[in-house]
Amino acid sequence: MYKLQEEMEEQVEMVGRAFVEHYYHLFDTDRSSLASLYHQSSMLTFEGQKLQGVDDICAKINQLPFDKCHHFISTIDTQPSSFAGGITVFVSGSLRLMCEEHPLRFSQMFHLIPTPQGSFYVQNDIFRLNYG
Amino acid sequence: MYKLQEEMEEQVEMVGRAFVEHYYHLFDTDRSSLASLYHQSSMLTFEGQKLQGVDDICAKINQLPFDKCHHFISTIDTQPSSFAGGITVFVSGSLRLMCEEHPLRFSQMFHLIPTPQGSFYVQNDIFRLNYG
Repeated sequence: MYKLQEEMEEQVEMVGRAFVEHYYHLFDTDRSSLASLYHQSSMLTFEGQKLQGVDDICAKINQLPFDKCHHFISTIDTQPSSFAGGITVFVSGSLRLMCEEHPLRFSQMFHLIPTPQGSFYVQNDIFRLNYG
Repeated sequence: MYKLQEEMEEQVEMVGRAFVEHYYHLFDTDRSSLASLYHQSSMLTFEGQKLQGVDDICAKINQLPFDKCHHFISTIDTQPSSFAGGITVFVSGSLRLMCEEHPLRFSQMFHLIPTPQGSFYVQNDIFRLNYG
């Protein structure tokens, strides 16, 4: 029983890490393809601005006022969520814009929900820059 | 229908804000009473350390190596979660320890689940200091 829980935790962590790597790779190389990770029910709160649905979310992401960027990940924390098979992912890191000298610190959380096809989509996404 | 959704969002935001105020007030004035906000199924990841269940979570919180502290909240973002009536809360702010000159920046997320008694408990809690 204990071993089973340990294995589940490892799997949750593995999925969370793979998702984070995939998400920021797409963000940094082909932002428009992030559309594949959101559904109609998905929610994004970006610096306090609330968006819902894959179209509005991707319009926001694609219209961010910078072209090239690079995310550096510092920490990834994962927990199984209350939704069967769901995973909560909490990320901290920094974001380097090509037009800016100093990287910006950020925190972001995702709630991932499994799809019938065996992958995951983002149901909840909250992003904040960390000032100070 | 639109009005209904707007009202729901307002309520989610109201509950999230009230929870945040309550949580950090207890943390700063009577840390041991935070036990009332966690259940046996609750999970806390504190600076990467994973804890589960109200006893282990509260032991961790009560044994933190500082006595008096004060949380200052910068931002609170809320979203309804996929669990019926659940609320995702994302907080950023700073933590002032009495023994430290400089405040520490932090981010924290909570997943709140409604109880049959009409209140909420913390199912997921992830805390990270923001260095850099």
